[in-house]
Amino acid sequence: MTAAILCTGTELTRGELVNTNASWLCEAVTALGFEVGASDCVDDDRQRICRKLERLGSEHEILVCTGGLGPTTDDLTSECVAQVLGVGLVRDEASLRLIEERLARLGRTMAASNAKQADFPAGATVIPNPNGTAPGFSVRIGRALCFFLPGVPREMRAMFEQSVVPALLPLRTGSQFQVRLRTYGLAESEVNDRLTGIEASHGVTIGYRARLPEIEVKVLARSEDEGAARARAEAAAAEVRARLGDEIVFGEGDVDLARALGELLVERGRSLAAAESCTGGLVAELVTANAGASRYFLGGVVAYANAAKTALLGVDAGLLQQHGAVSAEVAIAMARGARDRFGASMAVSITGIAGPEGGSPEKPVGLVHFAVSDQRGATHRRKVFSGDREQIRRRAAFALLALCRRVLLRGHDS
Amino acid sequence: MTAAILCTGTELTRGELVNTNASWLCEAVTALGFEVGASDCVDDDRQRICRKLERLGSEHEILVCTGGLGPTTDDLTSECVAQVLGVGLVRDEASLRLIEERLARLGRTMAASNAKQADFPAGATVIPNPNGTAPGFSVRIGRALCFFLPGVPREMRAMFEQSVVPALLPLRTGSQFQVRLRTYGLAESEVNDRLTGIEASHGVTIGYRARLPEIEVKVLARSEDEGAARARAEAAAAEVRARLGDEIVFGEGDVDLARALGELLVERGRSLAAAESCTGGLVAELVTANAGASRYFLGGVVAYANAAKTALLGVDAGLLQQHGAVSAEVAIAMARGARDRFGASMAVSITGIAGPEGGSPEKPVGLVHFAVSDQRGATHRRKVFSGDREQIRRRAAFALLALCRRVLLRGHDS
Repeated sequence: MTAAILCTGTELTRGELVNTNASWLCEAVTALGFEVGASDCVDDDRQRICRKLERLGSEHEILVCTGGLGPTTDDLTSECVAQVLGVGLVRDEASLRLIEERLARLGRTMAASNAKQADFPAGATVIPNPNGTAPGFSVRIGRALCFFLPGVPREMRAMFEQSVVPALLPLRTGSQFQVRLRTYGLAESEVNDRLTGIEASHGVTIGYRARLPEIEVKVLARSEDEGAARARAEAAAAEVRARLGDEIVFGEGDVDLARALGELLVERGRSLAAAESCTGGLVAELVTANAGASRYFLGGVVAYANAAKTALLGVDAGLLQQHGAVSAEVAIAMARGARDRFGASMAVSITGIAGPEGGSPEKPVGLVHFAVSDQRGATHRRKVFSGDREQIRRRAAFALLALCRRVLLRGHDS
Repeated sequence: MTAAILCTGTELTRGELVNTNASWLCEAVTALGFEVGASDCVDDDRQRICRKLERLGSEHEILVCTGGLGPTTDDLTSECVAQVLGVGLVRDEASLRLIEERLARLGRTMAASNAKQADFPAGATVIPNPNGTAPGFSVRIGRALCFFLPGVPREMRAMFEQSVVPALLPLRTGSQFQVRLRTYGLAESEVNDRLTGIEASHGVTIGYRARLPEIEVKVLARSEDEGAARARAEAAAAEVRARLGDEIVFGEGDVDLARALGELLVERGRSLAAAESCTGGLVAELVTANAGASRYFLGGVVAYANAAKTALLGVDAGLLQQHGAVSAEVAIAMARGARDRFGASMAVSITGIAGPEGGSPEKPVGLVHFAVSDQRGATHRRKVFSGDREQIRRRAAFALLALCRRVLLRGHDS
C-alpha cells in the first residue's frame, strides 16, 4: 500500500512559494506508517489536474490533495474530480449555510463565487473546515481513498488532524520504526562504506541525508509487529554507533551538533564563551539557537577588526603584527581572552579567511585557525575548507563545535 | 511546450526536508519563459523512478531532474535512466579522473562508491559539477530534453546556471524581463493593496514571494522584443518603488537587508558595531555574511549572561537590576557600550525573550527591545514578535537592521 500527495496551484509550479504543505503532509502520512511513493505538484490546468488524479488514483491506495477549493476561477478541484468520476456537482446546503454564517461574522455577504465552495462531486463526503470558508471532501478515485483539503496551511493541517487521520488509522498494516543518527566528521561515502552489510544482517533500510557539513544516517525497520520493528531498528542503530564511534555520532533525532555540545557542557558542569572572527557570530548563533543555552553559554565576541581583538579580547597587538590575525598564536590568544573576559570555564575561538577576497598563496581563502581553551590548556587546529563564503563559514563553525566536543570527551589534543 | 521538474529522494517523500530545489527550479525555468506543468517528487524506488521518467518524458519537452547522483546505494538515477532508454552504463574516464583529483585535494582516496559517480547512461552528455564530486548529465527521453543534476542545492544551482540555461535559451519563443524588488516593513496584503492597477497600466505581471520577514515583489514583462519587455518591466518597477518608498524597498535582485545597510554605511563613511542578547550572534552573522563587511563592521558582543553585559559592554549593574535585562534602558546602554568599546561611529543593540521559556505576563515571549546609537543620540524601539524561537530571533534581527537603515536615511526617531 502506498500513499500519494498532490498539491495544485500555478503559484507552486511557478516557484512563487516553497511548498511546505507537501513536506508537512509527507511527514505526517509517513509518521502514520504509510509509504509515500509520490508527492506531485500540478498547475491550475484542468486537463493536467484530471490526468494526475486518474493516475495517482490508479497507482496508490491513499491520496491527499491540497488547493483549488477557493472561490476564484482558477480553483478547479471539485470540477476536475467530478469530471474524472463522471458525476455531476451537487450543492451541499449545510455547507452553504456554514459559509454564509462565517462570512456574516466577518461582516461580509456571500458572493456567487463563495457559493461555489459548497459544490461537491456527487457521492463525496464533506470534510468540515473549522478555520476557513472552504470545506474539503473525500471520495474514492480508482483504488485510492482520496482527501481534498484547502491550500492554506493552517486550515489544511487542522482538517488533516481532525478528519483525515481518523480515516487513515484503520488502513494501517504493519508497523515501522526509524532511528535517526546524526554524524559529523566523515563524508557520506565514507559513512556508507563503514556501514556495509548492516542492512542485510539486521533486516533494515539505511538512508543518508547530507545537511552539510553533517550526515544523518536513518535506520528504518518495518515489521507486522511494532515491537519487532523497534527492536530491529535499535539493534541496527547500535551497530552503526559501534562502527562509527561516538566522536562521529554526536546525537540522535533532532539533536544538532551545538545541542549535543550543550548537553555535554551541562553534564560536565562547564560554561562556554566564544571569540569569532571569520564566522562573524555564526558559532554563537548556532549555540544560542537551542533553547536553554543560557545554562552554559555566557556570550561571545565577534572581533572582526584587529583593534577589536585587542580591545575586547586582550590579544597582544605585537602578536597580531608578528603572526597576522589568521594564525595559531592569535586563535589561542583569542580563546584565552574570551575565557578570561567572560569568566567561562571553557572558550572556543576561530579566525580565518572566508573569502571570496583576502586570500594569498600562504594564507588561501578557506584557511581557518581555531582553538579550544580551558583550565588544562589549549588545543589548536588549522584547516583549509572548500566552498563559497557561506559554506566555509558553516564548515569552520561546525569544525570548531566538534573540536570543543572532542576536547570534552577526550581531553586536549587526544 | 511545457517543462517538468522531478526531484528524487525518499527524504523528500518522507517529508524530512522542505523541497527548496523544486521551488528554485520552478522559478528559474519560469523566469526563462517556459511554462512548468508539473513538479513531482518520487522516492528512491527504482520502478517508480523509471515510470516517472517515462511519463514526464512523453508529456513535456523539458525535464530537469535532481538527486540520486551520489555515491550511496540509494542513488539510482543513472541506472534508472539507462533502464528507461534500454542502454547500458558507461564509465566516463575524464569524470573519474576529476572525481579522483577532487578527493585527493581533500586528502581522501577514492572509494568504490565514488567511482560509481562516473557511470552514465550510454549516449549521455556529461554536465560538469564545479562544486562537488557528482557530475550531472543530459539525455533525451521521449519528447523531452532531460537534465540530471545533484540534489545538493549549491551544486545544482551552479550547474543549472552554467550548463542548463545555455541549453534552454535557444528553445525559447519570445522574451521576458523580470525585476525583483526586495521590501521590508509591510505585510504581503498591504504591499498588494498599494500596488493596485500597476499590472494593467504597465502591461506586466506582479508576483509576491514571502521570505519572512521580507516580501519580494517580482515585476515581469513579456514581449516578442527583448528591449520592449525590459523597458516595460523597468517602468513598472519604478512605479512600484515610487508607491512603496525607499524605506520599504531596500534593494533589488540579490541585495539582502544587511547588504543594503552595509552599502549605505560605506556611502556615509560610517562604521558599525553590534551588541546582542536574544539574537545570540544572528545580527553579526547576517551583517558579516556579506563579503566586504570588514569595510564597515568592526565587531560585536553577544552578551548572553547579565555579567557579560556589564563586563564587556559596561552596562551598569544597577540598571540591569532596576529595569531587567529586557528593557529600553538596557538596550540603549548596550548600544552605547558597543559603540564605545569598538570605537564605532554607530552601534545597534538588541535584548529580548526568544522563548519558548522565560516569558511572563509583563514581559511575554517575543518581547524585544532594540536600539541604534550614534554621535547624535539613540533611537529605541519595543516590539513583540510572534512565532517560534527561530522566527522571533529572525524577525527581531531584521527589525533592528531596518531601524539602523532608517536612522541612516532619516536621522533619529524620524
